Amino acid sequence: MRRLTKTPDDGNAVEQVAGNGLLHRRALLGTAALGVVGAGIGINATGAAAEPLIEPPWGLQIGDNAPPYQTPSKFAKNVVRTLTNPDFQPRSSIARTPHHLLEGTTTPNGLHFTIVHTGVPDIDPRAHKLLIHGLVKRPLVFTFDALLRYPMTSRPAFVECGGNSAPLFSPKPIQADLQALHGLASCAEWTGVKLSALLDECGIDPGAKWFIAEGADAPHLMRSVPLSKGLDDAMIALYQNGEPLMPGNGFPMRLLLPGWEGNLNIKYLRRIKLVAEPAMSFWESQVYTEPMPLQSEARGKAYQFTFLNEVKSFITHPSPGHELKQPGVYEISGIAYSGRGKITKVMVSADGGRSWAEAALQGPVMSKAFTRFRLPWRWNGGPAILQSRAWDDQGHSQPTRAAFIAERGQLDAMPSVLAFKNHHINTITSWAVDPHGTVKHVYA
Amino acid sequence: MRRLTKTPDDGNAVEQVAGNGLLHRRALLGTAALGVVGAGIGINATGAAAEPLIEPPWGLQIGDNAPPYQTPSKFAKNVVRTLTNPDFQPRSSIARTPHHLLEGTTTPNGLHFTIVHTGVPDIDPRAHKLLIHGLVKRPLVFTFDALLRYPMTSRPAFVECGGNSAPLFSPKPIQADLQALHGLASCAEWTGVKLSALLDECGIDPGAKWFIAEGADAPHLMRSVPLSKGLDDAMIALYQNGEPLMPGNGFPMRLLLPGWEGNLNIKYLRRIKLVAEPAMSFWESQVYTEPMPLQSEARGKAYQFTFLNEVKSFITHPSPGHELKQPGVYEISGIAYSGRGKITKVMVSADGGRSWAEAALQGPVMSKAFTRFRLPWRWNGGPAILQSRAWDDQGHSQPTRAAFIAERGQLDAMPSVLAFKNHHINTITSWAVDPHGTVKHVYA
Repeated sequence: MRRLTKTPDDGNAVEQVAGNGLLHRRALLGTAALGVVGAGIGINATGAAAEPLIEPPWGLQIGDNAPPYQTPSKFAKNVVRTLTNPDFQPRSSIARTPHHLLEGTTTPNGLHFTIVHTGVPDIDPRAHKLLIHGLVKRPLVFTFDALLRYPMTSRPAFVECGGNSAPLFSPKPIQADLQALHGLASCAEWTGVKLSALLDECGIDPGAKWFIAEGADAPHLMRSVPLSKGLDDAMIALYQNGEPLMPGNGFPMRLLLPGWEGNLNIKYLRRIKLVAEPAMSFWESQVYTEPMPLQSEARGKAYQFTFLNEVKSFITHPSPGHELKQPGVYEISGIAYSGRGKITKVMVSADGGRSWAEAALQGPVMSKAFTRFRLPWRWNGGPAILQSRAWDDQGHSQPTRAAFIAERGQLDAMPSVLAFKNHHINTITSWAVDPHGTVKHVYA
Repeated sequence: MRRLTKTPDDGNAVEQVAGNGLLHRRALLGTAALGVVGAGIGINATGAAAEPLIEPPWGLQIGDNAPPYQTPSKFAKNVVRTLTNPDFQPRSSIARTPHHLLEGTTTPNGLHFTIVHTGVPDIDPRAHKLLIHGLVKRPLVFTFDALLRYPMTSRPAFVECGGNSAPLFSPKPIQADLQALHGLASCAEWTGVKLSALLDECGIDPGAKWFIAEGADAPHLMRSVPLSKGLDDAMIALYQNGEPLMPGNGFPMRLLLPGWEGNLNIKYLRRIKLVAEPAMSFWESQVYTEPMPLQSEARGKAYQFTFLNEVKSFITHPSPGHELKQPGVYEISGIAYSGRGKITKVMVSADGGRSWAEAALQGPVMSKAFTRFRLPWRWNGGPAILQSRAWDDQGHSQPTRAAFIAERGQLDAMPSVLAFKNHHINTITSWAVDPHGTVKHVYA
């Protein structure tokens, strides 16, 4: 098998723009310049393949019928969510998105992450109702069909659990893959009714400053949200990537608060109550708080109402679990997002942060949604530490680990990769590549 | 049950902009002006609901576990593809997208339309190969893993069968729903390798003007494509809405030719051969040709190589199968798309084309992808004929039925809604609403 490769001595036209092999992103525009991929296997001049091209079975047989609802090939059976509670014990169930096996910016509905506390409820939309009451002029009850009468809006948005990336609080880098570390963020095109339209219908009492949102499943999870967000881009979402919501993502309706902590985006929404003060529910007083480090002056205190999911990015490929089989040119690919708005820039390093190059962003860049970034990299077969760092349109960027830990602290120990003992960590993530091409999670 | 409604006498601030109740699209920006939806059910002053709000079973029970790959709620079991060959007889199988039940611009992977001729093949990506040969300098064979080494691009694109909308050739309006009439178009975010990158790798012989693309499933469906399209936006697609392709949409790889006739977008792509002239395969010489009307001077001849899917639109709601329960304000919603580029304008009529109003387009408007349009409409309970007409950024718009039939003819009879005896019809589609609120397909 003759493999076509070109060495860097070819006078390759693409310049290296940062240490350890990062190439200029314009090389992505056409591989005439990139040229060194050479991943095709050459066949000899007579046209006979080095290995004969034989007719495989599927070229000689009838296949299966097209079903009413498609599901993936059995050969893609690894492209699934991992489950924290596969035997359905009486505790929360968490299902994570396999980002290391996906591309683009959309998370397909089958793979959107799910967190439920008493399982996924089976809700009949013909019986489900949404009550809006409290400090309103006219309390109203909406059936699902009633909501379909209101103007709809469609927009992409990520949803991220406040506890996503919590393994990064560990004092030692957890040896797990991207799915385990950052799998509690997903992105879809949501369609639904602006909450502001429904609040208009009810009429808002001037004393209202917050609203309480509550779910219909057994935990009746409740969170308090500033009314200003409700009047901004809050949505009662009814469709996910075009079809009705997945059961694990809120069917038949959920609250969508673009860019805000996942727990606030109440699934199976049944009630919104306008109030003067927050409810101080279990979830916002006991769970989604961020304790200050013991060594700080603020020890014993905790952040509360950390609404925003701050800017974050991570490299999806190469990442732990992938193996680079040989030196050569690879495309570093990843996703970036910010609850504040659009991503403006993603920088990538191949030398653990000593030098950086700007990645190409897949347009159009959308506010509070996943942005795909890419950069070509020539791996010379030596050790490398890959990092990405994103900036958003409010000027915020991801902190280094050192800066973050100084301000927020870290755990003394990490009992398991699943422990959520703190939230809202968005430090730079580092992947080390060794000379065997193995990729693992490190701190750098 | 006291229902809050507002009559048009309220001094409603939204002006009617076209006949039979079409309202200005700016009403969609905030319902304070729209105000008349009033679809909520009032509750009395004590806060007690007119109907008691009882705790349904799902609020009192444990649900189901989150699965590795989510599928829809059983209560959404009508949101599926219809099958032309449910018993899998030895003939083609066609599965149509239920546009009348969807929203937004993305078609979820479970519901993307599929046409296969010997069933859906079960292809092992580890064994599948893509050969590029013919008038090239270096013929190459690419494994799936080899393709992953190339720069990726992501973009939304619709795929539409050339025979979509063929029922509109019937001399009488076929009494069927949107899924039956226009269900062979879908839209996804595709990620893959630009074909131009692979052709760069192979080196193109100056004599090459076309390429033949061939599939790996038993029919080995083959089409000829001008090389210029291959060097433009043609893609070897590997991901559909972020995950590997669905089996019915080409797993593990397909050719994507944005905006071009579906049949050309070869699924299960196994071979590309650069050639000087088209192959004149069965599919392009026998099937995807458009015979001229018998009454025209060109009778006996046929269009061939009708590559482009021209601009098209249709109203998804209200549409046949939906019932408007009472007079009032509704949102007319639909999708528009063009193989030439972006949609620039969609006009909507409620009086069978006598008057028109401009619909709001959901941004960002993307080239060769679905665009969602919406317009508020006050239905007074009388008869109405709803239509949409789209324009693209090359200045093309949908023809009236009369103009189209004059040029392309119509069938003498339509043996069934499924007969593809002609292709590439993009006339304005009309839905009649009767005073009972029933919607049906008409010609107007």
